[in-house]
Amino acid sequence: MKINAKQASDILLDNDDFLILTHISPDGDTLGSAFGLMKALKLLNKTACVKCSDEIPPKYEFIMEGNCCDFEPKTIISVDIASPSLLGESLNKFADSIILAIDHHEINTLNAKDIFIRPNAAASCELIYEVITNLGVKINSDIANCLYLGITTDTGCFKYSNVTANTHNVAAHLVECGAQHAQINRVFFDTKTINQVKIECEAYKNLEYYFEDRVALIGISKELVEQTGATESDLDAISTIPRSIEGVEIGVTIKQKDETSHKISIRTNKYINASEICAKLGGGGHIRAAGCLIKEDMQTTKKLVLDVIKPYMSLIEDAN
Amino acid sequence: MKINAKQASDILLDNDDFLILTHISPDGDTLGSAFGLMKALKLLNKTACVKCSDEIPPKYEFIMEGNCCDFEPKTIISVDIASPSLLGESLNKFADSIILAIDHHEINTLNAKDIFIRPNAAASCELIYEVITNLGVKINSDIANCLYLGITTDTGCFKYSNVTANTHNVAAHLVECGAQHAQINRVFFDTKTINQVKIECEAYKNLEYYFEDRVALIGISKELVEQTGATESDLDAISTIPRSIEGVEIGVTIKQKDETSHKISIRTNKYINASEICAKLGGGGHIRAAGCLIKEDMQTTKKLVLDVIKPYMSLIEDAN
Repeated sequence: MKINAKQASDILLDNDDFLILTHISPDGDTLGSAFGLMKALKLLNKTACVKCSDEIPPKYEFIMEGNCCDFEPKTIISVDIASPSLLGESLNKFADSIILAIDHHEINTLNAKDIFIRPNAAASCELIYEVITNLGVKINSDIANCLYLGITTDTGCFKYSNVTANTHNVAAHLVECGAQHAQINRVFFDTKTINQVKIECEAYKNLEYYFEDRVALIGISKELVEQTGATESDLDAISTIPRSIEGVEIGVTIKQKDETSHKISIRTNKYINASEICAKLGGGGHIRAAGCLIKEDMQTTKKLVLDVIKPYMSLIEDAN
Repeated sequence: MKINAKQASDILLDNDDFLILTHISPDGDTLGSAFGLMKALKLLNKTACVKCSDEIPPKYEFIMEGNCCDFEPKTIISVDIASPSLLGESLNKFADSIILAIDHHEINTLNAKDIFIRPNAAASCELIYEVITNLGVKINSDIANCLYLGITTDTGCFKYSNVTANTHNVAAHLVECGAQHAQINRVFFDTKTINQVKIECEAYKNLEYYFEDRVALIGISKELVEQTGATESDLDAISTIPRSIEGVEIGVTIKQKDETSHKISIRTNKYINASEICAKLGGGGHIRAAGCLIKEDMQTTKKLVLDVIKPYMSLIEDAN
């Protein structure tokens, strides 16, 4: 059943021994939601812990203090998990025992007894904030750090179009409660590994321009990734690069998976629907960010993508 | 005399025919403040216009509509101008006629009749927001764009430590009033010129590491700037690069001005006072960002800076 923040907090008040589940490839929002909620429940003298099927990257350690699952969980909660497949291997066994799901995704396919969902929230942490407020817990700096982390990471530091007035209102209160906002933002938005710098510079060097520079394209071969020693997370920001060049409407990133398959990411700025382009190549996504997989070599892949893009160029001309 | 927002708005209500002055090398905060205020005064059926000694870059055009100075100004206002030297050549003649200065800098040396100053505000636009509210003007999306622009550009899109709860509260209201926040942030934070990309990649390539990689240094020669065709504004973000490398505590950027003089920018992350280092080299600034000018060639400049930095390295070791 769909419930609101007050009803969600009532469920939490009525229960104890909480296991809070987070999604695979954990990010700031699922972890901030989970640890923020865990810390709030502990302030109510309840027992709670957080689990994730994947290993949690070390940069999140600062919010994880006090996480100890040495009790028999009785109440299973999920945060920011949109579908059962995102529970991952070790948490999959809880798929049918979730009594409360808290989430901000458009569609949630979990089999939870109750769900507090609000798709227009920028982050699940906005919902957790409301639940904690309803619990009557005073937000301390520890909890504020968790919730701020989720909000800032899910909004690109308040940069994306998912930000609403409520996002800023919650952030204002979290700053007031002692969130170390500048430090969190420095770690998550102003820090690059040396290998990340290497691969990004190679990416910039390999930029190709098409259709009077309205399309920018980067091809990243496996060989290049290996040469620079970049990890998957070092590659995270690569797909934002082509679109960021002044005057570019469509940014295309082609990452080699193996000899004959490439992962395509398409980002658009203003006029063109990225998901429409990717749909024609067997993929999908959102209006400004979409993707697909093409089982061809790099040259053929480039040609296929550019051929699909070509007819869209007139849309930009019409708009200008 | 130091006055508050209410008193500032009373001065505006009592006068007409406003000339609003902005500082040289105009940025989002001085322009957002000026045009936001101009638009609010016009809604009160007053006459107002904005001037700047320097040319205003085209990316600010979207807030400049309706700026027309074809009247005899009677009331001179300055926004975000901390000292007379920042008036620039063509506005210098107004230095002693300013009846109201609105500013958020630590120290303001203008000779203004009255000043509404609040150094802990992240942007002058926060102060203008308060003044406009006191004027009784309902903020429309046009005004909201101006004020949002100033706040987001002066805070690095809400990333810096100057952000307070009030910053987010004001942003929340501006989003509610129709500020096109995502679009503004895309232009100001997610767009690079091709020459900017070129110079930044060269900068990354030229990174040098010292003191067990805790110091990263970039030297930018005039020749390199000319080769890449980069403009002053293409160089804006360069000084943020060395500090952004994982593990680096001190980022040093050395930009050649001419054969025998170099501009130094020092950014620190957590432990070391940048302004203390720059003070020893004849400069100054803030705890995390400071600068100085050294009249030597590149090699000697590097050596001088590294010699001053060396004794600070033990502070990092002590902290770890």
